[in-house]
Amino acid sequence: MDGTTQTDSGKTAALIARYGTDAVPAAGPWNAAIAGMLDHRSVRGYRPDALPPGTLETLLAAAQSAATSSNLQTWSVVVVEDPAKRAVLAEIAGNQKHILQCPLFLVFLADVSRNERLGIAAGHPLEGLPYLETFLVASIDAAMAAQNAVVAAETLGLGTVYIGALRNDVVRVAQTLGLPPGAVGVFGLCIGYALPGAESEVKPRLSQAAILHHDTYDASEEPAHRAAYDALLGAYSRRNEMSADTWTQRVVSRNGTVKALRGRDLLKSALRTLGFPLK
Amino acid sequence: MDGTTQTDSGKTAALIARYGTDAVPAAGPWNAAIAGMLDHRSVRGYRPDALPPGTLETLLAAAQSAATSSNLQTWSVVVVEDPAKRAVLAEIAGNQKHILQCPLFLVFLADVSRNERLGIAAGHPLEGLPYLETFLVASIDAAMAAQNAVVAAETLGLGTVYIGALRNDVVRVAQTLGLPPGAVGVFGLCIGYALPGAESEVKPRLSQAAILHHDTYDASEEPAHRAAYDALLGAYSRRNEMSADTWTQRVVSRNGTVKALRGRDLLKSALRTLGFPLK
Repeated sequence: MDGTTQTDSGKTAALIARYGTDAVPAAGPWNAAIAGMLDHRSVRGYRPDALPPGTLETLLAAAQSAATSSNLQTWSVVVVEDPAKRAVLAEIAGNQKHILQCPLFLVFLADVSRNERLGIAAGHPLEGLPYLETFLVASIDAAMAAQNAVVAAETLGLGTVYIGALRNDVVRVAQTLGLPPGAVGVFGLCIGYALPGAESEVKPRLSQAAILHHDTYDASEEPAHRAAYDALLGAYSRRNEMSADTWTQRVVSRNGTVKALRGRDLLKSALRTLGFPLK
Repeated sequence: MDGTTQTDSGKTAALIARYGTDAVPAAGPWNAAIAGMLDHRSVRGYRPDALPPGTLETLLAAAQSAATSSNLQTWSVVVVEDPAKRAVLAEIAGNQKHILQCPLFLVFLADVSRNERLGIAAGHPLEGLPYLETFLVASIDAAMAAQNAVVAAETLGLGTVYIGALRNDVVRVAQTLGLPPGAVGVFGLCIGYALPGAESEVKPRLSQAAILHHDTYDASEEPAHRAAYDALLGAYSRRNEMSADTWTQRVVSRNGTVKALRGRDLLKSALRTLGFPLK
């Protein structure tokens, strides 16, 4: 691919969909791969059709091709096929039926246990492992790897949705998958062919001006950006979700109370239980 | 793009490069976008050439198209152009000259401050913000967004390298960029055209069998996988880095001592200083 193939009308349409407004950013170079990325949407309903042979291996090769801090590779994947285990994971995640439905379900692990075993085998136990930094690196590397898998899947015509709600009970996830100390499921990922109608409309995001800063953080225009986004996300909600929630209402409902964290307020102690002291 | 265009020789070559061995995974569907992802390598030397107009906006649109947990969008970006600020950031990162050199340098923030302001404006201060979960979500979402930007950049012929070493001193990064409480630079990203010779060889990764588990975590074959990878990464080091370090030696040098964390052992207290109590 090179950056020279421009389909200006497609580009403008993609940006209008992603930002929910005609006032789109002045994007420059463009190509089919980028257009595909802009067209991302979460898929919460899957056909039972199996994936072509080797799809998991292709997606994993893409995932492993993402950058990994100092090549530490402190992440792993569990592919969950056992229906009983899928059922437990779906229950943990608040009964998300697509976890049962999708032909390929992956749990991405922040996994420092492999390197811990390496250090022990080498006679150099790793003093750096118990630190928050090491857990953070593992989680970030897992996220970058997973995102490569998502982008690759979408180029193959597959739909995806992340399952952050596995963090509602990371200890039970670890028990279900037999994880060793130093490994934790940070999120799940459903992959498969979307059921007709299960591909939601592209969800508009905040304007670039609301999230981009130049040399110095400057939130002075933020109230105006937020008001504009509230209006257009309210319209999206009416079109897609039979509600009229603004973005402000959504954020308040998701993060306003400890109860809304659905158990994830206990994540720190759960991680300690799983071998992450987070020093 | 569809998954039907297969160039089997190119596919095999890409897998051999990524895994450093002829014993490649049995990958299935393939296309040019996936081939491009497998060809990723870090670029640590940049030509001074400016990027085409609108490149930042294109990459940011790709970044914002990544999934974001509950649409909370708790990440932001600072584009750093001021040479004095670049110099401070490069110093924090252990004098990585490519931070000064690259035409586009971004700092990705885990940023809950925007939603904190939203809650205050709405009269509903957000009880969920001080939790580790919320910081983790922000970091994961920043990583997924950044990875989309990286994939998009590479389809445009640009090189990239992440700068995790900004976490050597996140407080000084925050001071340099004027970040409000509740925002922290989790990593930087250099983007630009690679200097001739600055594109390193594709770095081989652990075999898929070493990181993939089926229903239950199983590390019984791990010593064999590690021995094989040690040998091939030692060969990679000899070809590229005038050393003969195995993977085991690299991991031990990076994570073996607290000193090797280069200040990141203080990340937890630094995050508290920046408004992340990590409850």
